[in-house]
Amino acid sequence: MIDDVLETNELFYAAFAERDLDRMESLWCVEQTPTCVHPGWPPIRGRAEVLESLRAIFAGGGLAPTCEAPTLQSVGDVGIVLCRERLGAAVLVATNVFVREEGAWRLLHHHASAVAQVPETPPLDPELMPN
Amino acid sequence: MIDDVLETNELFYAAFAERDLDRMESLWCVEQTPTCVHPGWPPIRGRAEVLESLRAIFAGGGLAPTCEAPTLQSVGDVGIVLCRERLGAAVLVATNVFVREEGAWRLLHHHASAVAQVPETPPLDPELMPN
Repeated sequence: MIDDVLETNELFYAAFAERDLDRMESLWCVEQTPTCVHPGWPPIRGRAEVLESLRAIFAGGGLAPTCEAPTLQSVGDVGIVLCRERLGAAVLVATNVFVREEGAWRLLHHHASAVAQVPETPPLDPELMPN
Repeated sequence: MIDDVLETNELFYAAFAERDLDRMESLWCVEQTPTCVHPGWPPIRGRAEVLESLRAIFAGGGLAPTCEAPTLQSVGDVGIVLCRERLGAAVLVATNVFVREEGAWRLLHHHASAVAQVPETPPLDPELMPN
């Protein structure tokens, strides 16, 4: 059952990739009030408001985030997934909180934000080094 | 008991303001593995690692975030606080996940990130408007 949290997390990113609003709608919790923080946005509270924000993002036609290296912490009927997201060249980090409702895991909270890109130091070119 | 989550959330920001590492240490969970996302940082996993990052932040002498408008969602032994943070002129948003350990609420996960500042449109000056 615990693995199902990570499966539901995958479904969330699949719905994003497919811009599937119906599936997305089925993934968010009903008995609690969902909340969502898109990168750089202020928090959004409420099921209708969260889904409207996703509809706008889908309609905007931008890139969908992909999920990497998810890890799960589970406490009772709550599962907290921490993962890296890639959005084109950008690296983000996401906290996804799932709650079990009638046996199914549903998103209660999504918080994604950018990780600052530290430019890599270019390798030293021996030809350019002083003798 | 549920209100205690918000009280513990306040203690977290008080420990930040006072750079009180002992209090900070007492606020993070022991039975689970704490995780932390400072603004723009990649995720930090593990109690020692999280506390070391806070020690470095305290030593750096920067501003401490203050918390505004926290809201709580509670599911069993988990409490999820969503709040605004102010760090000087910057506005951030934070997800703070607390877990109950032996009757006390402890931080399991902190994720803070900047909210993009949208410059306000200056009011139209009627003197500059065409007739």
